Amino acid sequence: LNALGTHSILELYDCPAKLLNDPGQILDFAREAARRARCTVLTEASHCFEPQGVTAILLLAESHLSVHTWPEVGYAAIDVFTCGQTTRPREACQYLARMLEARRQDFRQISRGQQAPEPHQQRLPIPQVGGQERPLAAAEG
Amino acid sequence: LNALGTHSILELYDCPAKLLNDPGQILDFAREAARRARCTVLTEASHCFEPQGVTAILLLAESHLSVHTWPEVGYAAIDVFTCGQTTRPREACQYLARMLEARRQDFRQISRGQQAPEPHQQRLPIPQVGGQERPLAAAEG
Repeated sequence: LNALGTHSILELYDCPAKLLNDPGQILDFAREAARRARCTVLTEASHCFEPQGVTAILLLAESHLSVHTWPEVGYAAIDVFTCGQTTRPREACQYLARMLEARRQDFRQISRGQQAPEPHQQRLPIPQVGGQERPLAAAEG
Repeated sequence: LNALGTHSILELYDCPAKLLNDPGQILDFAREAARRARCTVLTEASHCFEPQGVTAILLLAESHLSVHTWPEVGYAAIDVFTCGQTTRPREACQYLARMLEARRQDFRQISRGQQAPEPHQQRLPIPQVGGQERPLAAAEG
């Protein structure tokens, strides 16, 4: 496989609404999912919607992990975008499906950057010294 | 279409490395892409990688927009995950392809949450100030 990244796309159906509407819990699940995928979390962002719904996004050294929930219909959309040979995105997805108590799910993986030329170098995060990292900022306006 | 969300997946190839390695520029492009998609940016995060590469993620009221770049191979992976009937993710993708000067691209869209039951309510962000007010047009589940 020559792809630069693997994009795991998980649809979770028939999840309990209460679980899908708890931002702290969702973020905890996302962090643990990233750990199980052997990924490093660099930054995280989350948001609660009115009247319901949660978004949690983790910026990873290996790309990103996102969770969007629609408690009113028991649905969660999960994306685990990873690069490198050592990640385990499938384990992250299995964990999230279990934790969110999905009774139905749909899992697929697509390759990203398949037509990019070799060599595919592994990216490493810049060490956290001297303000290299841009802090999470609330958007203007 | 009964999907809850539309996930636009864009692969950009043969982009100039310099463009792909400028985090401020990438973030500006991402913001403008979100605007053209008629989306509202709630939070943003970005990261520079060593020796090269940038990630920019915008948490949107309509889900998310992410850009991951691999300057060493001229490749950028774009995701525009939108919900609601008023968004224009294709315009965001066209804009990013043009701004990043991609000479080749691959664009596809997949439906998210297709098996979720009706009704599909539109989610609204919680007001940032004076959170007492409930947004109009949000139907109770």
